[in-house]
Amino acid sequence: MVELTQLMENEVFMAFASYTTIVLSKMMFMSTATAFYRLTRKVFANPEDCAGFGKGENAKKYLRTDDRVERVRRAHLNDLENIVPFLGIGLLYSLSGPDLSTAILHFRLFVGARIYHTIAYLIPLPQPNRALAFFLGYGVTLSMAYRLLRSRLYL
Amino acid sequence: MVELTQLMENEVFMAFASYTTIVLSKMMFMSTATAFYRLTRKVFANPEDCAGFGKGENAKKYLRTDDRVERVRRAHLNDLENIVPFLGIGLLYSLSGPDLSTAILHFRLFVGARIYHTIAYLIPLPQPNRALAFFLGYGVTLSMAYRLLRSRLYL
Amino acid sequence: MVELTQLMENEVFMAFASYTTIVLSKMMFMSTATAFYRLTRKVFANPEDCAGFGKGENAKKYLRTDDRVERVRRAHLNDLENIVPFLGIGLLYSLSGPDLSTAILHFRLFVGARIYHTIAYLIPLPQPNRALAFFLGYGVTLSMAYRLLRSRLYL
Repeated sequence: MVELTQLMENEVFMAFASYTTIVLSKMMFMSTATAFYRLTRKVFANPEDCAGFGKGENAKKYLRTDDRVERVRRAHLNDLENIVPFLGIGLLYSLSGPDLSTAILHFRLFVGARIYHTIAYLIPLPQPNRALAFFLGYGVTLSMAYRLLRSRLYL
Repeated sequence: MVELTQLMENEVFMAFASYTTIVLSKMMFMSTATAFYRLTRKVFANPEDCAGFGKGENAKKYLRTDDRVERVRRAHLNDLENIVPFLGIGLLYSLSGPDLSTAILHFRLFVGARIYHTIAYLIPLPQPNRALAFFLGYGVTLSMAYRLLRSRLYL
Repeated sequence: MVELTQLMENEVFMAFASYTTIVLSKMMFMSTATAFYRLTRKVFANPEDCAGFGKGENAKKYLRTDDRVERVRRAHLNDLENIVPFLGIGLLYSLSGPDLSTAILHFRLFVGARIYHTIAYLIPLPQPNRALAFFLGYGVTLSMAYRLLRSRLYL
């Protein structure tokens, strides 16, 4: 068996691993938030989910949508749409030998922007709080993509 | 050109590759299931998709939603929301040098939980079948995240 | 600190990195397209987003859905559903030592198919343009998954 520890001894890669794990855990928290609001507000998408709250027609009244639940779901989808590119581009960027402090700055800004985006979405804070958080994370990912394509383009 | 075969000679990484390929293929199957229900039930989201079923107003009646199609789409989105964290955290976990049998246990439980989640969603089975499958997969990913952050935190 | 440049000296991996960065950047463009249509058509999902367009009831009239915006969002979600499997399976496939020209053919077909899918969705082109683009990208990913599982299955 070959030693893979070399990847995890690379500081950029370790930093990427840490920040990615944090931002993905944050994204997973959105599932819990959705479940929490669905249960406390009794708002469900599937008939089998509200079977415990009554029988027949009585249960069907819980098959509805709710502003709060939809808001959490939009925040979750926005996370997916932005964290997936970060995951792919960030991984390749980390392997392309960037400067350690530049790389960590990218990761910190992205994770901070996404956490602030979630806070701004869920409270909600007035615009442009959420928009700025979105564009900061977006810009960080584009900056890594630009560096990758400029230095390593191979088509 | 450098030999990369060392990564693929690592047993944990090979196991991760196999289980990931299986769970992503399962997720891709959801697209086919959506297409199947859309075509057999004539339920479409875009005007151009139902142009073959009639002209003008006659075709527009197929622009509708359907419980069965929406159920498959919710299952697909739930897959995305859970398999993306597994992909990122699992990859980094595999590279962090975990014990082989522990790692394989994590991968098997996750893939089993997601397959059972899909079955429970599509049949549908009464709750808490789907909820338990969801939380099992969720817990497996969190367990890998915890191990990563405890042993390799680098911020 | 260990040199990681070996991964980036591998031609298949460099090609994967380039095509992945391109297709993820294309996917990120969908966010901008959604924002563009939301702002030009004044169609919003959150009360705080339309606060700048009027007060009270006057602003609430912009909380609506719009065919154009929904179309972009469906294209974006379809991207996510297809690019996530490509990301995971393609990464593992790249590391499994495939033939360079075969690998590049896979990546080119996938990226071309997804770009054509977006064009066919947004214009929109009549079917089966979009369906063919979808199945081409789908087939490419399955072909990589098949190769991975056949040569490296480890369960």
